[in-house]
Amino acid sequence: MSPNKPINESTDKLTIGLFGFGVVGKGLYDVLHSTPTLRSSIKKICIKNPEKKRSIAAEHFTTDASALLNDESINVIVELIDDADAAYRIVKTALQKGKAVVSANKKMIAEHFEELLALQQRHKTAFLYEAACCASMPIVRNLEEYYDNDLLKSIRGIINGSTNYILTRIQEDQLEFKEALSLAQQLGFAESNPKLDIGGFDAVNKLSILLAHSFGVIAKPGTFIFSGIENIASPDSVRAREKQYSIKLVANAKKLNNGKLAAFVLPQFVTAKDELYQVENEFNALITESTFADRHFFKGKGAGAFPTASAVLSDISALRYNYKYEYKKIFHQRDTALSNDFYLKVFISTDDITKISKADLEWIEEWHNEISHSWLIGVVHAEKLAAGDWWKQDGVSLILCPDPVIEDIEYRKISKRSLELAGVV
Amino acid sequence: MSPNKPINESTDKLTIGLFGFGVVGKGLYDVLHSTPTLRSSIKKICIKNPEKKRSIAAEHFTTDASALLNDESINVIVELIDDADAAYRIVKTALQKGKAVVSANKKMIAEHFEELLALQQRHKTAFLYEAACCASMPIVRNLEEYYDNDLLKSIRGIINGSTNYILTRIQEDQLEFKEALSLAQQLGFAESNPKLDIGGFDAVNKLSILLAHSFGVIAKPGTFIFSGIENIASPDSVRAREKQYSIKLVANAKKLNNGKLAAFVLPQFVTAKDELYQVENEFNALITESTFADRHFFKGKGAGAFPTASAVLSDISALRYNYKYEYKKIFHQRDTALSNDFYLKVFISTDDITKISKADLEWIEEWHNEISHSWLIGVVHAEKLAAGDWWKQDGVSLILCPDPVIEDIEYRKISKRSLELAGVV
Repeated sequence: MSPNKPINESTDKLTIGLFGFGVVGKGLYDVLHSTPTLRSSIKKICIKNPEKKRSIAAEHFTTDASALLNDESINVIVELIDDADAAYRIVKTALQKGKAVVSANKKMIAEHFEELLALQQRHKTAFLYEAACCASMPIVRNLEEYYDNDLLKSIRGIINGSTNYILTRIQEDQLEFKEALSLAQQLGFAESNPKLDIGGFDAVNKLSILLAHSFGVIAKPGTFIFSGIENIASPDSVRAREKQYSIKLVANAKKLNNGKLAAFVLPQFVTAKDELYQVENEFNALITESTFADRHFFKGKGAGAFPTASAVLSDISALRYNYKYEYKKIFHQRDTALSNDFYLKVFISTDDITKISKADLEWIEEWHNEISHSWLIGVVHAEKLAAGDWWKQDGVSLILCPDPVIEDIEYRKISKRSLELAGVV
Repeated sequence: MSPNKPINESTDKLTIGLFGFGVVGKGLYDVLHSTPTLRSSIKKICIKNPEKKRSIAAEHFTTDASALLNDESINVIVELIDDADAAYRIVKTALQKGKAVVSANKKMIAEHFEELLALQQRHKTAFLYEAACCASMPIVRNLEEYYDNDLLKSIRGIINGSTNYILTRIQEDQLEFKEALSLAQQLGFAESNPKLDIGGFDAVNKLSILLAHSFGVIAKPGTFIFSGIENIASPDSVRAREKQYSIKLVANAKKLNNGKLAAFVLPQFVTAKDELYQVENEFNALITESTFADRHFFKGKGAGAFPTASAVLSDISALRYNYKYEYKKIFHQRDTALSNDFYLKVFISTDDITKISKADLEWIEEWHNEISHSWLIGVVHAEKLAAGDWWKQDGVSLILCPDPVIEDIEYRKISKRSLELAGVV
């Protein structure tokens, strides 16, 4: 088979070259070899460490990437390694050689999105990555296909399982952040270097990918507002419990009245009426809002070897009928762009009041000072959050209020003023 | 274009012949004509009543079905009429002529499933019907594609919006069944002849379709156990409130330990821990359980013109890249069959104790007699429910208990006996 020959439905078998043989890779191997109807087999597995004891014969393995990439009988590369830079080189070469590629590496995909898109176009080959967003949940494909023609208004969800597990423990067991993190690490829900998760970077990478498939916007990670959950302190959870809120790290993308798109990843107070309230532990969830379909809510396991393997399998299965992402929204809706021209209603708490840049706030609705802790509720322009980083420093936490996005601030200002005049506030 | 020529990706336009111009058809027309990127247009619309005032020019309409079916330039038939028999004739002819077909008619599809499947195979054309199950929610396609290679263990959900609306009103507003039904009819959530919904038939039709796409089982409606919600009486809702349960009409399909499949549609007591508890009013929901992906929960609007139109649109969009259901599970998993060889834990209430066939119950765990009402909790073999209809007669309601399916009854019998011996029960 020439490397550029497309995979034909129901005729050719998929011959897979697999990079990585961790828990996901091994699970995938077992399933493919016990399910002949998939008509897919793994020809060779590329690993980093040949000394490591493996559950299958040594002849299956190689440490030479080119043995897979140059093998013309291999028409699918499945990339399941941690190292984002190495993954990028593998995926790029495979696409250039006209092989179909399946990957779960959100960091690599988000950072190189534009180039990987161009490679797919140039070499007319498929690059699928369902496992990169919310593990087992069929999110990418549904956003790509199902909400194509419907007028999608917003997506909003919990897309990082580690932080959600930590937040659940903080709230249910009243643990301190550090205790909850340590528990998550013991249980394998967080990496030994957890910065990627708790700093919000992983959720940002995923939102970056979702923006392309939901709204046709290519936005590099870091071009929209985000924070993680590291600064959430005990008084914040106390405040949440008092108000019967739950704290969640929420990824948001929302069409604004000006036609542009607001996008951010921030902790939020979530009420019991919000579907995200019930999403606990390592579960992920996504709410889509669209003109015709109204609200859809999806919930599933967002992390773990088996959920990830199941998404990889689904991509492999889709290759059998030549499925490719069409990126229709990117090519047809070029006018959609990110914007920070909106306001957010926020809760800000701190151990030192001088850390808060009050000049950045439009107005303050509540203000409480305690001996070693202060907090306020106010409204801030998103551009000011994007421009400054005082709200991310140690000892300051910023948590969105329920329904945080305000577009029509003039109206709010007037109604606030009229309440003041009436002596109500 | 010859009628058998397949629709090519990104080249040919879809030229649609539309049957029916009710709210869904009209919504679809408006969207297709205001979204040029869809590259689809409606050439002609076949209606029953030419006298009715329409919002678009008369030249778009015809009452002659053959004007659409014989038009070789029309490559897609979209069928959105109520009459299941007329719909069947239209769809059959269209498939025979090699046209792709999109339909929302669950009754027609469920009743003629095997024949419509054979027609698709013979004429190598696409027949898509996402709108037939849970309206806007992308259920059929996800079951067909996403859970293909994963080992699906069960599906379980609320798949009829009218009955869920009625049950919500009974419980939240403490209405009698008849009052709630009348309210649903006033609001357009139930037909003037509501038997199809409240008798459970609509949910049965949908489960029949879902069985094919989830487990590869072709089961005509009526070949599995079902009832509706007509017999649910005030004492049942009182009992639900006392136990903090919600009553839902739940469709179930579950792999048994014997490898066969249990399938039934019955009212159920649902606990607050169950995801279905929060599914209210006209919303639908589905929970999938599978070996690798674990549990997925989907919720969305299961009825209404716009949600239905959005699913039809998604099918039309899928036709642009030649999408067809592959029915992989039907062709590869022929051994899966329905079975009634399992037990159900049930709550049965009645206005007349002689209506209950006690001989059909394996055992009774609770028994309460009040002046005009009695109820019991017991265990019944599914085959006995399938064989008899005493539990469906007026004045008797049967509601499943939480976690109703029992497979290992011997163990339960022994533990029950040991409790009796110990004097516990």
